[in-house]
Amino acid sequence: MTKQAMAKVAWKPGTMLAPVPAVLVSCGGTGQWRPNLITIAWAGTVCSEPPMLSIAVRPERWSHPILTETGEFVVNVPGLAQARAVDWCGVVSGRDTDKFAGAELTPGAAQVVGCPIVQECPVNIECRTRQTLALGTHTLFLAEIVAVQVSAELLDESGRLMLERAELLAFAHGDYYALGKYVGHFGWSVAKRQTERDRQRRGGEE
Amino acid sequence: MTKQAMAKVAWKPGTMLAPVPAVLVSCGGTGQWRPNLITIAWAGTVCSEPPMLSIAVRPERWSHPILTETGEFVVNVPGLAQARAVDWCGVVSGRDTDKFAGAELTPGAAQVVGCPIVQECPVNIECRTRQTLALGTHTLFLAEIVAVQVSAELLDESGRLMLERAELLAFAHGDYYALGKYVGHFGWSVAKRQTERDRQRRGGEE
Repeated sequence: MTKQAMAKVAWKPGTMLAPVPAVLVSCGGTGQWRPNLITIAWAGTVCSEPPMLSIAVRPERWSHPILTETGEFVVNVPGLAQARAVDWCGVVSGRDTDKFAGAELTPGAAQVVGCPIVQECPVNIECRTRQTLALGTHTLFLAEIVAVQVSAELLDESGRLMLERAELLAFAHGDYYALGKYVGHFGWSVAKRQTERDRQRRGGEE
Repeated sequence: MTKQAMAKVAWKPGTMLAPVPAVLVSCGGTGQWRPNLITIAWAGTVCSEPPMLSIAVRPERWSHPILTETGEFVVNVPGLAQARAVDWCGVVSGRDTDKFAGAELTPGAAQVVGCPIVQECPVNIECRTRQTLALGTHTLFLAEIVAVQVSAELLDESGRLMLERAELLAFAHGDYYALGKYVGHFGWSVAKRQTERDRQRRGGEE
């Protein structure tokens, strides 16, 4: 790469990490709380063992007291088929809307937590909050992953998870994208030879 | 969607959030520490104001004491052109390797922090750690974003950031992907009409 091609411009310090996930978080469905959905892009994995993730939510959001009082939620990982619902659940408030009905999504049974999963989403990650941190505009919920369900159609005949069948959605700088070209598996840069699966997924090209 | 198509299978509770970013974190370059690089997929945005992100790092990693002692790092967001370097920096240790040299990456000047940026990466996010949390296998570094640089070639003639030019990389379930088809901007599901930019980016289709 030429020096010119690598020239840099100072940009406003901001939330520029990308791509990030765009997920449907479900909560409520117990006690006084109706089931609700909130779209979250400020989410990430934070620990492998115990498996943990974080979601960041503004205190003024309708879901915030539901999350703090119940201590439970489900991260529903959407596919391309849920893209419109993901966006819609990010701009409408659950204060005066049944978002499951409005987004034409089906509440399904979780395994461990009290709130519903989104049945249409290919991956459902049930979480119990361990710690909350007030960071500024957002409260960070650090949660343990206590159960996972995947759509049966993601498994191949040997029971292997083929997550590429989920047609996952990514978010970058205000825009949603589908995942595109397969680049390689973790460790491919030092692999002695290409695996058969790699060859298939790259469509034969090196 | 039919009931059959939405059938669920219980899966092992694990780090199933996807896609997540795959970034090159640079650190060191001050005091006793040589500059180093570490590939991180357990990263996420955690607050909008102040802008903050988190990275999760295992204590046994060579970068861990560098991060805890210096309190500074840069999240270098790679493009497809850096995919091999991203993978390689994730499998090799900086204990006995100069990873900048080994990955043929150029250390560049940060604006605020003491460690180098990766000049080739289209977006460089300078961070100062505010808090660390020992969560289990990983330490979570919660950091404020104190400066950002972007590659000049990402800007259009009016100075607008066209992040899609960066050809960002995503990570899902052990695999790297390029970002693919543009789906829409945040709020498109309730937009009264398609914007000209949307039309262009979708290639004319609705």
